Amino acid sequence: MTPRVREILGWYGADSPGTLTNLARLLNHGRLAGTGKLVILPVDQGFEHGPARSLAPNPPAYDPRYHFGLAVEGGCNGFAAPLGLLEAGARDFAGEVPLILKLSNSDVLRDDKDPDQALTAGIQDALRLGCCAIGFTIYPGSAHELAMYRQVALCAEEAKRNGLAVFIWAYPRGSALSKAGETAIDVIGYAVQIAAQLGAHVIKVKLPTAHIEKDAARAVYEEQSIPIATLADRVRHVTDCAFAGRRIVIFSGGTMISDNDTLLDEIRAIHAGGGFGSMIGRNSFQRRREDALGMLAAMMDIYASADARS
Amino acid sequence: MTPRVREILGWYGADSPGTLTNLARLLNHGRLAGTGKLVILPVDQGFEHGPARSLAPNPPAYDPRYHFGLAVEGGCNGFAAPLGLLEAGARDFAGEVPLILKLSNSDVLRDDKDPDQALTAGIQDALRLGCCAIGFTIYPGSAHELAMYRQVALCAEEAKRNGLAVFIWAYPRGSALSKAGETAIDVIGYAVQIAAQLGAHVIKVKLPTAHIEKDAARAVYEEQSIPIATLADRVRHVTDCAFAGRRIVIFSGGTMISDNDTLLDEIRAIHAGGGFGSMIGRNSFQRRREDALGMLAAMMDIYASADARS
Amino acid sequence: MTPRVREILGWYGADSPGTLTNLARLLNHGRLAGTGKLVILPVDQGFEHGPARSLAPNPPAYDPRYHFGLAVEGGCNGFAAPLGLLEAGARDFAGEVPLILKLSNSDVLRDDKDPDQALTAGIQDALRLGCCAIGFTIYPGSAHELAMYRQVALCAEEAKRNGLAVFIWAYPRGSALSKAGETAIDVIGYAVQIAAQLGAHVIKVKLPTAHIEKDAARAVYEEQSIPIATLADRVRHVTDCAFAGRRIVIFSGGTMISDNDTLLDEIRAIHAGGGFGSMIGRNSFQRRREDALGMLAAMMDIYASADARS
Amino acid sequence: MTPRVREILGWYGADSPGTLTNLARLLNHGRLAGTGKLVILPVDQGFEHGPARSLAPNPPAYDPRYHFGLAVEGGCNGFAAPLGLLEAGARDFAGEVPLILKLSNSDVLRDDKDPDQALTAGIQDALRLGCCAIGFTIYPGSAHELAMYRQVALCAEEAKRNGLAVFIWAYPRGSALSKAGETAIDVIGYAVQIAAQLGAHVIKVKLPTAHIEKDAARAVYEEQSIPIATLADRVRHVTDCAFAGRRIVIFSGGTMISDNDTLLDEIRAIHAGGGFGSMIGRNSFQRRREDALGMLAAMMDIYASADARS
Amino acid sequence: MTPRVREILGWYGADSPGTLTNLARLLNHGRLAGTGKLVILPVDQGFEHGPARSLAPNPPAYDPRYHFGLAVEGGCNGFAAPLGLLEAGARDFAGEVPLILKLSNSDVLRDDKDPDQALTAGIQDALRLGCCAIGFTIYPGSAHELAMYRQVALCAEEAKRNGLAVFIWAYPRGSALSKAGETAIDVIGYAVQIAAQLGAHVIKVKLPTAHIEKDAARAVYEEQSIPIATLADRVRHVTDCAFAGRRIVIFSGGTMISDNDTLLDEIRAIHAGGGFGSMIGRNSFQRRREDALGMLAAMMDIYASADARS
Repeated sequence: MTPRVREILGWYGADSPGTLTNLARLLNHGRLAGTGKLVILPVDQGFEHGPARSLAPNPPAYDPRYHFGLAVEGGCNGFAAPLGLLEAGARDFAGEVPLILKLSNSDVLRDDKDPDQALTAGIQDALRLGCCAIGFTIYPGSAHELAMYRQVALCAEEAKRNGLAVFIWAYPRGSALSKAGETAIDVIGYAVQIAAQLGAHVIKVKLPTAHIEKDAARAVYEEQSIPIATLADRVRHVTDCAFAGRRIVIFSGGTMISDNDTLLDEIRAIHAGGGFGSMIGRNSFQRRREDALGMLAAMMDIYASADARS
Repeated sequence: MTPRVREILGWYGADSPGTLTNLARLLNHGRLAGTGKLVILPVDQGFEHGPARSLAPNPPAYDPRYHFGLAVEGGCNGFAAPLGLLEAGARDFAGEVPLILKLSNSDVLRDDKDPDQALTAGIQDALRLGCCAIGFTIYPGSAHELAMYRQVALCAEEAKRNGLAVFIWAYPRGSALSKAGETAIDVIGYAVQIAAQLGAHVIKVKLPTAHIEKDAARAVYEEQSIPIATLADRVRHVTDCAFAGRRIVIFSGGTMISDNDTLLDEIRAIHAGGGFGSMIGRNSFQRRREDALGMLAAMMDIYASADARS
Repeated sequence: MTPRVREILGWYGADSPGTLTNLARLLNHGRLAGTGKLVILPVDQGFEHGPARSLAPNPPAYDPRYHFGLAVEGGCNGFAAPLGLLEAGARDFAGEVPLILKLSNSDVLRDDKDPDQALTAGIQDALRLGCCAIGFTIYPGSAHELAMYRQVALCAEEAKRNGLAVFIWAYPRGSALSKAGETAIDVIGYAVQIAAQLGAHVIKVKLPTAHIEKDAARAVYEEQSIPIATLADRVRHVTDCAFAGRRIVIFSGGTMISDNDTLLDEIRAIHAGGGFGSMIGRNSFQRRREDALGMLAAMMDIYASADARS
Repeated sequence: MTPRVREILGWYGADSPGTLTNLARLLNHGRLAGTGKLVILPVDQGFEHGPARSLAPNPPAYDPRYHFGLAVEGGCNGFAAPLGLLEAGARDFAGEVPLILKLSNSDVLRDDKDPDQALTAGIQDALRLGCCAIGFTIYPGSAHELAMYRQVALCAEEAKRNGLAVFIWAYPRGSALSKAGETAIDVIGYAVQIAAQLGAHVIKVKLPTAHIEKDAARAVYEEQSIPIATLADRVRHVTDCAFAGRRIVIFSGGTMISDNDTLLDEIRAIHAGGGFGSMIGRNSFQRRREDALGMLAAMMDIYASADARS
Repeated sequence: MTPRVREILGWYGADSPGTLTNLARLLNHGRLAGTGKLVILPVDQGFEHGPARSLAPNPPAYDPRYHFGLAVEGGCNGFAAPLGLLEAGARDFAGEVPLILKLSNSDVLRDDKDPDQALTAGIQDALRLGCCAIGFTIYPGSAHELAMYRQVALCAEEAKRNGLAVFIWAYPRGSALSKAGETAIDVIGYAVQIAAQLGAHVIKVKLPTAHIEKDAARAVYEEQSIPIATLADRVRHVTDCAFAGRRIVIFSGGTMISDNDTLLDEIRAIHAGGGFGSMIGRNSFQRRREDALGMLAAMMDIYASADARS
């Protein structure tokens, strides 16, 4: 147990030893074990975007075992997926990589202006599959947001009671927000705060832009001169919004980017801003396996380097 | 236990021995026992389309026992029906054919643009009737899709906990889709993926056309040159969408087709594409009994022949 | 136990001895005991239509005990009513007549185009009152139909688990149907099928007309030349739609008819068509007691005569 | 135990000795003990109409203990109020007056055309506070009526199982009714019937007018020449609608009336018509205490006099 | 135990010793211990208004421990916050300050005309975190008000059963009210009464203005000459509306006010009017720490001075 991991676990004083053990499993697994940084492979795009769009660019990825293997060989801290995908590999890869069961999902067949998520599995599923955490998506800004918050609260209480950790994917979206607002710095910061208040141990958001969506927020950003010019600035602000950095915030990898430099620049900015790591899906499994492993290694090199902040 | 059945059971590593036993009962029953292929008689049309439309073309079919008998004599792997119909024959035919209780149903009295299903029975019903599986219909694309996913997830968890297998009828439909889109290759592939992610052991879909419904999907199909020209191509793609063929996908028989050659050509294409079989309702029970038995035998001959793919 | 009752009980092979015992109580009670025919007194009109409209034509009927007494003295097989009315007489008449607790009710204060029913009592109420069955109304064709089917399914499972029998009043109604469609032969047949699939032991419908509501159904009725010209033809078709006559279908008596010949002609047609009997409310309790007893006796004479079909 | 109370308890043959004991506590308490008549003090106007409108005319009434004291000293059979008000006095006045916990409430901040009620307490609250009964308001005629009926049915079953009695405030209201229709004789009669069918032991309604709201009802009232000209006639008809007088029907006192003669004339009419008493709120607590006690005594004198009907 | 605290506890005669113990913990903690007055630090603005707007004016406040420390050093009676924030400090500050878990929350990303709250934690969370009370927000006047009342009732019953105290934040808001109406004296009085009737032990409202929103209320205020001219008058009326002062009513501190005199004048008016104290969030944590401590001390000085009323 490294001092940094011990420090991080110390932030979760309200949790049971069972939940801390599961958080420690994630923090102490893979290439970044002990650093306090996390690179997690999330594969829910088959459900969220459709199988052909997600998997056809790299056909071996149609097989769930491909992703388990990629997470193991890539040295990821964990692997996150919906029920069916985890069921398809949990026995073959038992004990090889910490699992996060994504309990909620949606699809893109519909294009509702106020998106929602369905609960597609339960805590008992996570326990029987040997997961160390469960995860949900919330859409702050959607007309369904309050129902999602409540659902998360109910499941999080059950998860913690059973010694699991809780991830929240906080994706602002819906009729209350413009398209640009979905990644506005004020909105991402707000989403992170909501997830933290809902009791998440780990929060995943998209990288924020310098756009400010709400007038009432803009006044404060300007008055207080909150630095948001660079990506690192914004990452730093976002982690501040998660209880002054005392909750783990990680960032999504976004759509497939063929230009590795651009992608790694983002990782450097996350690292410089004090972010805790990445959930990197499409940029992992939509490349050829060797490329993905190389990219993951390069990312982990950055996260393993001396932290610019903490 | 044939090697092929053992192989198939190996795909379901997250399931209990109880559920595997029930899957094995289906795979090892009837004319196709041991082949890994399934021909199942589904009779829910009395509920879904009305009794006269479904049964009047072959009046003996009004009697539930007719269908049990047809499934038994026809050598089907199983018989699927709603609660009432199974209750009407389960004692008389106990042990003669594996049963699948269809837990959800709808009717066509209404013609809502966003269709939904009612839960019309429960897991305890399946257990008291000696069923080996339960089944549901989902309508991806309907405004009610998320509620249906959640309902399936709740029941599937209970079913697996009780050692039952889970079927999902995945029928894309609703205000998000055009009529052609209901059987579009991208949409059927997506529906199969959703069902697999929801934890289905067996997935039933309609045969897909070469139509592509969603622009975002079309770009990928074209870019990746996914073969979808022939029916066998499309079946192959659809089984890929079910965890690279590691979930059982079977196809519906569609409306009554008097031309046997057309029907058998479809079966040959399913077989050639690596599909796992058929659920063949109206093309079974809307014919005279001898014709139905002949047709079932001809289908099974095809499925029992050397598999073009696996 | 007559052979006919034994035969009927044989249709319910999925039910527990407890439920069969309760079905037998109904079939072996009153003037028609042992015949396999049923005349049941249903009194829910105070709730469904209002007390003055229902009871003022025969003021003694305001007293719940009047109906218990009428059912007993009239030799009815059973007495069906909502919670309050049964509570008001169940102790005084304990053991004198089988009771059916109607679990759902609605009123006519509102005139919603898509009617619904409220669950107004539960299985535990039925058990404490000594009932042998519970009953519900469903409105196939209403926008609320799926919710009603689900409610029925939940309660029916609990009822069967507790050894009770299940009645369904299947009254097509709602925005999907024209007024004539509510009693159209295709729609009544469909409603009976739905009730049978939901697991009803006894199904009550209105007498169907020769009208056909749905085009898709009309094509089949014409193509298959299903006889529907006479009321007996239609009754026969409706009982076919209930698992080829293997579920008990009874018919409502409709509004008060002063012309006894017309009413008894309907009974003769039900009998000739193989119907299992009547639920006869307003035509019983809206007459003077002696007239009602005479009418019930005349009806039972018809049902007790040699059955034209079975 | 007087013969009259014993007779009334005999109407509730389906209830447990526990519930009968609680009904007897109400019937045998206060000035009217043993007469079979009830004068109950209901104080929910702070919630239903607001505190200033309800309590400012008599400022001591802001204190919950004022109402307990008024009910005790006034010799009322019981005291009915929402949770908070009962909690504020139940220990100080334990055993001094039977309590009825009003489980549902609404407010007048909103003016929805289809009113609804919130469940604001539960059966366990009633038990811990030592209540002998629970009560609800239903709004027959509102678009929410069926949901309210179901809620009442669920709570009433639990209440009876725990030996409590059940009151229903039946207040017709909502988009299906005109303003005059809310107190129309046909509608009040219908509301009483619905409450009785839902299993109420005691039903409270407003005094009906001679207006008839529904055409289908008017035809019957005219054809059967139901007497509704005088208030006593109407009270008699309304009690008939409650199982021929075998359920306890009491009447609300309405808004504050400064003219005592008018108020007492209403009481005389209730008494003459066979009504069982009054729930008299604003006409009790909006007067000075001595006036209220005088008025209550005058009312009870009337109810204690020889009953014109029973 | 001071006589005043003993007196206050005496108002809650329906509560268990467990709940009284927890109320006493609040009343006997901090600088105002034993006075019967309460100054509580509430920090839910990160969720309700967003982190930057709430916390950037005083950056140390991003850290949850800042608020625990401020509550402890400031001598507050308690500290109220949502789940996540309490989880982040409950172990480090265990036993140092009484905690109130705010069970419901909303955000301002949306601007719905009928606001609602999500349940974001449960009673079990409060117990595991060592809280002495739970709290909710209700929005009387919103189309969702009845659902919120019901939710509060359900949780309050569970809380009391587990020995916790219950706070209600009563914030009138929604389509039934004008903006001015949200703090109108009649509406605030009504909101306090509703909260008291729902069984709250402590009620928090905004300071009322002299505006009267509803015509029916205005008539009474004028007729009864209820004094509402000064803030102290209005506070006195509002505490009257809480069972004649027998429920604890405290007032929110509102938006950040830089002019201390204005703020303290409000406190003096609350004190003069017999209010029980303040929940003072933004005026505490949006200042520099020393300023906040000074302001809290000044407020407490006022509340600790001889009470003008009780």
